[in-house]
Amino acid sequence: MEKEGKKTEIGTLGEFGLIERINKHTVIKNPETRKGIGDDAAIIETGNGLMAVTSDMLVEGIHFDLSYTPLKHLGYKSAAVNISDIAAMNALPKQITVNLALSNRFSVEAVDEFYKGIFLACENYGVDLVGGDMSSSTSGLIISITALGGVANEDVTYRSGASENDIICVTGDLGAAYLGLQVLKREKAVYLANPDMQPELDHFDYLVKRHLRPEARMDIIYELKEAGVKPTAMIDVSDGLASELLHIVKASGYSLNIHSDKIPIDDLSFKTAEEFDLDPLTCALNGGEDYELLFTIGQSDYEKIKYLNDVTLIGYITGKGTKAHLVTKGGDAIPLTAQGWHHF
Amino acid sequence: MEKEGKKTEIGTLGEFGLIERINKHTVIKNPETRKGIGDDAAIIETGNGLMAVTSDMLVEGIHFDLSYTPLKHLGYKSAAVNISDIAAMNALPKQITVNLALSNRFSVEAVDEFYKGIFLACENYGVDLVGGDMSSSTSGLIISITALGGVANEDVTYRSGASENDIICVTGDLGAAYLGLQVLKREKAVYLANPDMQPELDHFDYLVKRHLRPEARMDIIYELKEAGVKPTAMIDVSDGLASELLHIVKASGYSLNIHSDKIPIDDLSFKTAEEFDLDPLTCALNGGEDYELLFTIGQSDYEKIKYLNDVTLIGYITGKGTKAHLVTKGGDAIPLTAQGWHHF
Repeated sequence: MEKEGKKTEIGTLGEFGLIERINKHTVIKNPETRKGIGDDAAIIETGNGLMAVTSDMLVEGIHFDLSYTPLKHLGYKSAAVNISDIAAMNALPKQITVNLALSNRFSVEAVDEFYKGIFLACENYGVDLVGGDMSSSTSGLIISITALGGVANEDVTYRSGASENDIICVTGDLGAAYLGLQVLKREKAVYLANPDMQPELDHFDYLVKRHLRPEARMDIIYELKEAGVKPTAMIDVSDGLASELLHIVKASGYSLNIHSDKIPIDDLSFKTAEEFDLDPLTCALNGGEDYELLFTIGQSDYEKIKYLNDVTLIGYITGKGTKAHLVTKGGDAIPLTAQGWHHF
Repeated sequence: MEKEGKKTEIGTLGEFGLIERINKHTVIKNPETRKGIGDDAAIIETGNGLMAVTSDMLVEGIHFDLSYTPLKHLGYKSAAVNISDIAAMNALPKQITVNLALSNRFSVEAVDEFYKGIFLACENYGVDLVGGDMSSSTSGLIISITALGGVANEDVTYRSGASENDIICVTGDLGAAYLGLQVLKREKAVYLANPDMQPELDHFDYLVKRHLRPEARMDIIYELKEAGVKPTAMIDVSDGLASELLHIVKASGYSLNIHSDKIPIDDLSFKTAEEFDLDPLTCALNGGEDYELLFTIGQSDYEKIKYLNDVTLIGYITGKGTKAHLVTKGGDAIPLTAQGWHHF
């Protein structure tokens, strides 16, 4: 009974285009809703601080491949990627709800494995599992998680908060999760071609773990609090550094430069990228799924953060504008483009 | 890489069994978490009242059939069924997040239709769409919605609150949504057998609408507030009256009786059940998807609610215990059993 008429393929808009299309029609009616669509999490006023709310879906065959993804890791990751969005608001995660749709090819024991990962994440991040839904599906496993967190009015960080001369920082290293995925895909192909071959994953432990079981960088949130630093803007790196930088530019209305020689890339990522004939810098800029934190701080906070572990200064907010550039060693400024998300 | 070992089919536990299994391992760590798994919504203390949080999934081929479900109605229903859970906590809905996974057979225009329904529900219920996720799926449409609501400390209603001599009430009428679904399925079968046949839905408008576009009974929440009545326990009728009554029994530790001749059933439901060779009472008890509110009130509130529109008194909480009985006109007491939910 679908209506006849114009049919535009979803792929022509992509995820961000679709979300923007929806957001345009969104009207906020409740004064408690401080921030709706358009940041890592929505922000709701509770009368005693703020609550951050975020929700993400993971779909079998799109976001994960169960032939090389242990269910326990998948449970952990599903929780962690949502908690990462809470962290990006400078909030502390408190509760999650977990919705699962699964076909009858899954056993009770498989569900148990998945929840072992959920419970481990709950323990590690101090989060309560407070609800959810369990349904069957006609095919495959679909996970939808909502995470809630708390943050004081004065502590919340939006993407829009960056301003002139702010320093751009990123945690950890980038590109490893993407390369871990390439390794897993290769080993799967080898195994399918010859089931007697054992996967060679030992050398790639770090990369594979970065893909299968990422952590939300709550440690950085606590470190920053301790150092007395409130980022001016923050976002988590889920779609790739370039894409997240462009989100900050768009939300803040400021241009920025990052420096290619400052981008943190692990040695193993370098070597593995080479092995796969990939450019390590491209993996770091567009690989995605790093779940590191990208944030900006005022110049006056530089002294407070320069000795922090695992935080790298990668560039600066320049002036009002809409541009993000990568400055190479040779001094060239290359416009950053978001590969973003093109599952459709 | 799945582990070898015992494999128990999910169907042996069902939804409720699985959820109980998970709940057993759940540890609440945050003092703000007032109520986790086990009611219509989780309850979180905000320091300035309570927040209700609920999340539900709708899966194509399991919960809906797009061959007779207009996407706009589906959007509306997805929001309404979650808002119904917020209502069941005696809370006012405030925000929703919407996660969608959809295959590339859906067009941008189809997504628009779905969101028209979401926005209409947002308008009708005074709710803000504050976030969500958009993903592709390998097949079909999966919707996962989280709803948030606010309620004062003294107003929240749990399933556990029923106690001796409380009056059991239900809103609206029951069984119509289930019968609407039967009508739609029949017309689909007729159409598939002979595509020249036009569906005959006109006579069944009310039933079909009850299935395709149910409403959350927020009107009743406001009416009760106005009448100065706080239910002692409340739950929404999603799995069928019998199943919900058993939830109240289990949560409260009290037995109850309902009376067969008091169960509200619409005339059209009666006639249609007959046409389909179904027992109207069974449809009302076990049909599900009515999204009416089932609640208990203290005897002292009887005078306040007896003139309320669309509220029917169907029985009483008896004494401490674990039993729910249907008392027939002849005076027989038949134990209620939950058909519940057996999609697996």
